[in-house]
Amino acid sequence: MGRWEANARGRLEEAALSLYTERGFEQTTVAEIARAAGLTERTFFRHYADKREVLFWGAGALQESVVDAVASAPVEATPMAVVALVLDTVATAIPAERREQSRQRQAVIAVNPGLRERELIKLATLSGALAGAFRGRGMSDLAASLLAETTVSVFKIGFELWVAPGNEATLGLLMRDSLAELRTVTGG
Amino acid sequence: MGRWEANARGRLEEAALSLYTERGFEQTTVAEIARAAGLTERTFFRHYADKREVLFWGAGALQESVVDAVASAPVEATPMAVVALVLDTVATAIPAERREQSRQRQAVIAVNPGLRERELIKLATLSGALAGAFRGRGMSDLAASLLAETTVSVFKIGFELWVAPGNEATLGLLMRDSLAELRTVTGG
Repeated sequence: MGRWEANARGRLEEAALSLYTERGFEQTTVAEIARAAGLTERTFFRHYADKREVLFWGAGALQESVVDAVASAPVEATPMAVVALVLDTVATAIPAERREQSRQRQAVIAVNPGLRERELIKLATLSGALAGAFRGRGMSDLAASLLAETTVSVFKIGFELWVAPGNEATLGLLMRDSLAELRTVTGG
Repeated sequence: MGRWEANARGRLEEAALSLYTERGFEQTTVAEIARAAGLTERTFFRHYADKREVLFWGAGALQESVVDAVASAPVEATPMAVVALVLDTVATAIPAERREQSRQRQAVIAVNPGLRERELIKLATLSGALAGAFRGRGMSDLAASLLAETTVSVFKIGFELWVAPGNEATLGLLMRDSLAELRTVTGG
């Protein structure tokens, strides 16, 4: 993808998030997004399958990265060390520059039940993929499922804190703090 | 609700689960469920708002029970002791007699994306309610959210094991084992 195309993708996302925020997701059309970005509908559909995908395009790549992180962790790494590697991978995949878009995105999803369902399905799929990767390291089905659910919970709650208004801490730090807190509350 | 009415409710549920299993959820109508139960559509709608509610009617009562369990736990109970009380409450709310219905229900939901989304929303709502109850005990937002997510994960995974073909262990035992395993994997 050339520089211009990458730019088109970003401009479309920015226009879409602004319109979803102002008018609501349901009330926005692809034609309006393309127009606001100064591009054609045809260009929109070269980058996104539909207007919902603007909000969820990152999920597939994120899932692939974290599954790779689990698979390529040192053989001797403990389950918690592997989870830490997964969280580092997430923090790298969602850089600080994405914070404002992420805030807008989260606010749009929060008020739309259909989008919330979609988000939950994506997280459940991520958990399933992570469980598969943990099993690939020789963990039992039960341990793998529990660790995957825990990892996704820590990611979800860390991410919610990261996009909360006024929060200045990095995503990596918020997820690490959440994991430490989880170990404290479940350890007592 | 009189004895006859309670019986009607159970007969409708049984008929619905059989039809959803044989034909699929989408392909089954309320008229067919009522006919198979030897009752009228009008009676169906006195018990269930729609054909989806046959699968989810228990969620509200379950949520109420677990929130009550958290609120009424002794002041000095540790977070893990409160979670254990919640799991006991779940095990009581979903008795052994419900196992076969629960198996059918789970199989119907597993093959229908819309129902899976609904199930995820119900679990997310349960997690939110539990987090509120934990905050009510003076826990921080972060600790409450993490503990709620953990509790729901343990319930979800224990329940999946309970409805798995051939599994004979009780739901209470499976959830307790899952919680112990979670503490082991996150403690390492």
